[in-house]
Amino acid sequence: MPRGPALLRGCPCASPLLLPPCRALALPLPLPRALAAAGRGRGAGLGSGGGGGGFRPSRVVVVAKTTRYEFEQQRYRFAGLSEDDLRQLLALKGSNYSGLLERHHIHTKNVEHVVDSLRNERIEVRLVKRREYNEETAQWADAVISAGGDGTMLLAASKVFDRCKPVIGVNTDPERSEGHLCLPVRYTHSFPDALQKLYRGEFRWQWRQRIRLYLEGTGINPTPVDLHEQQLSQEQHSWAHINGRFQDQRSEISGPHLLPVRALNEVFIGESLSSRYAVCSVLFRVNYKSCKPSFKFSLHRASYYEISVDDGPWEKQKSSGLNVCTGTGSKAWSYNINKVANQAVEEILKIVKKHGSLNLPLNREFIQKVTNEYNDSLLYSPEEPKMFFSIREPIVNRVFSSSRQRGFSSKVCVRSRCWDACMVVDGGTSFEFNDGAVASILIDTEDALRTVLLED
Amino acid sequence: MPRGPALLRGCPCASPLLLPPCRALALPLPLPRALAAAGRGRGAGLGSGGGGGGFRPSRVVVVAKTTRYEFEQQRYRFAGLSEDDLRQLLALKGSNYSGLLERHHIHTKNVEHVVDSLRNERIEVRLVKRREYNEETAQWADAVISAGGDGTMLLAASKVFDRCKPVIGVNTDPERSEGHLCLPVRYTHSFPDALQKLYRGEFRWQWRQRIRLYLEGTGINPTPVDLHEQQLSQEQHSWAHINGRFQDQRSEISGPHLLPVRALNEVFIGESLSSRYAVCSVLFRVNYKSCKPSFKFSLHRASYYEISVDDGPWEKQKSSGLNVCTGTGSKAWSYNINKVANQAVEEILKIVKKHGSLNLPLNREFIQKVTNEYNDSLLYSPEEPKMFFSIREPIVNRVFSSSRQRGFSSKVCVRSRCWDACMVVDGGTSFEFNDGAVASILIDTEDALRTVLLED
Repeated sequence: MPRGPALLRGCPCASPLLLPPCRALALPLPLPRALAAAGRGRGAGLGSGGGGGGFRPSRVVVVAKTTRYEFEQQRYRFAGLSEDDLRQLLALKGSNYSGLLERHHIHTKNVEHVVDSLRNERIEVRLVKRREYNEETAQWADAVISAGGDGTMLLAASKVFDRCKPVIGVNTDPERSEGHLCLPVRYTHSFPDALQKLYRGEFRWQWRQRIRLYLEGTGINPTPVDLHEQQLSQEQHSWAHINGRFQDQRSEISGPHLLPVRALNEVFIGESLSSRYAVCSVLFRVNYKSCKPSFKFSLHRASYYEISVDDGPWEKQKSSGLNVCTGTGSKAWSYNINKVANQAVEEILKIVKKHGSLNLPLNREFIQKVTNEYNDSLLYSPEEPKMFFSIREPIVNRVFSSSRQRGFSSKVCVRSRCWDACMVVDGGTSFEFNDGAVASILIDTEDALRTVLLED
Repeated sequence: MPRGPALLRGCPCASPLLLPPCRALALPLPLPRALAAAGRGRGAGLGSGGGGGGFRPSRVVVVAKTTRYEFEQQRYRFAGLSEDDLRQLLALKGSNYSGLLERHHIHTKNVEHVVDSLRNERIEVRLVKRREYNEETAQWADAVISAGGDGTMLLAASKVFDRCKPVIGVNTDPERSEGHLCLPVRYTHSFPDALQKLYRGEFRWQWRQRIRLYLEGTGINPTPVDLHEQQLSQEQHSWAHINGRFQDQRSEISGPHLLPVRALNEVFIGESLSSRYAVCSVLFRVNYKSCKPSFKFSLHRASYYEISVDDGPWEKQKSSGLNVCTGTGSKAWSYNINKVANQAVEEILKIVKKHGSLNLPLNREFIQKVTNEYNDSLLYSPEEPKMFFSIREPIVNRVFSSSRQRGFSSKVCVRSRCWDACMVVDGGTSFEFNDGAVASILIDTEDALRTVLLED
């Protein structure tokens, strides 16, 4: 349960858009104590922003991304490579060592800038990377700052389950990263400006809705697999679970488990690591006698499942997978799955024209206009408590159909008919989702992530 | 080099569509010897079909698929499970054990039918599965028959590099498999009918064009990884290669290697096992001290590369990957990547109508018509020596653009800027394709696969 910071004004959570006020702030603290707290800089209040009170955290965790340079270093660490060896190795692979190092330095400098700015305000800072970042650290902090790109924001958000905990993103490599979820690029090099705006209340809170997942069915495995860092072999992992269940005789149908994750962008359901015909499910087998590890990639396959939207009828489907996103995620993968190309619109309109049905001449401008309007219709506000589901590369044949390739919904239920599928949350955490498992996917405004929109 | 069977008539390879006649048959054998060979049933001729001579193989390899049931058995074999244990385990996972067994039996029966039919004609048959099937076996045979679905046809074709070697597919589970590449479903249960047609020449040869790949650049690794079966750990595999090169000082730019594969469906290029934001590149690390294997999934990412079509200018792109297919493959993954949904066409036309540009009323029929016409335009004949490239989920932003999302071409060159990418051929074989590597992708009619179109 979150430790609630004191309020300067009424809890901003109780805005008309959202329902139950922040649990921890059910009763506003008496004013003197709140002011004292604010003065001490400890447990400073969550101002309503936008002309109201400011926000002055006293403890901040900065979650920094792992650069590609660090990634390559870590990857070959077990071999005890020197810096020179690493340079040669990367050159052998054709990678650009100096380019990687340069981006690493840019990022590192920008992180230092953020950390220094915070410490100059006598804010207590913990700087962590992926491995060290956890829920306790997020709870310790008054605010979480991600220093990286959008991926790092997803990471930062993944350990926050408290609607009152602000998460702010700083884009540490604006030349390479879009940073949709981050503050505007100008604050990367002048973070104190952002801090001042926070203090002065020259911002408003933005609640980014998130998706929650329930899992049920025979033999489900609610243990998350961290796709970013995993120390157990997959097979040992699965086997340990199966063994456990085998012995416990827990083979009855399990009730719905609420999974310990909230999707900020999307949930993707499909055959493990599915790239359609190039799916490989990794089977890790250890030959205990020789201690010679090996693994097998099995045959690729499409994803089979049944889907029910808003408690509608179940429909069998076969596709490259199902994507269910939030307003935040509507700009991310979902957008790329669903957007239409200029070229496609042009060809469709040519066909229409051929049938004599088109008035206007087919000029570039018109085609672009139609394309843009179509693509824009795929985007919606992160604050809207609705989901957008889309089926990726649906397969339509004798057995499978797909009446609606996509649409808005409040609830999506999926029954797996897959061999080796998973549900992947924000590209980072995955859950087994095999034949028989049923997932219920929906938004609860309780799960919204509090982020910051600075005023210009 | 293929051992050329004797001819009954002129080499069918010398058809107007294709260029150099089959190398092994540059000179027709003298008639008496050919007839004698035919009589002996050994090295029987490749008739021209279609009213000309028939085709009567004396040695056939039947490549049978691995059923899901067998897959599940193998997967848990190391644990020494009994049949009963397996049944329980599958039930725990929610899989339908009896369903799997039923499909396994259906398939097995149909394979037996094919093998028996061949042996009844005194044809020497070798029945193999994936593991035992190799180039030598394909060369030994006069014809290759795949017994499974389309995936098994891809497997069967993958060991055939001889334009004169017929490859024929039998669909052993018509209820579950589309079998686009297989004989019509009626021959599954009456394979002798198919054989008779072959003997009587009541068929024509169909040459399915295939794609070849050249790879060059610093530090490339032309060793294929079989995604279906691999005994080495990925990391050991990569490390062995890197180590070897490190010691050999072979760090200079290597000239173009022609890779030992031919794509019947497509080549897909992208970050390893890319499912866009859910890419996991498997890094296998062995802790030699404790013999405790582990692996790490690293962060997902999109694919970066540069592409040049038909020797045109290089263009930087970022996407979920690039698909380059043949006419055969135009019905496969490529079709699913590029086809447009009814729903999308309807929405596009609604936008057009809003601008007052549409004459006709937007009825279901018209929308379906336009949709079908558009989707049909994605398909073309397997015999056409041209490729179709498509970019999957292109990302368009400040840095990256994509002038053409897809199109026909004779040649596609790709320069990788990826971290951990690969080129996947027919979903089954993959090659490292990392930063700096350059692939040249094209069709050479020499590589065409000879298949059979039976007459009605």
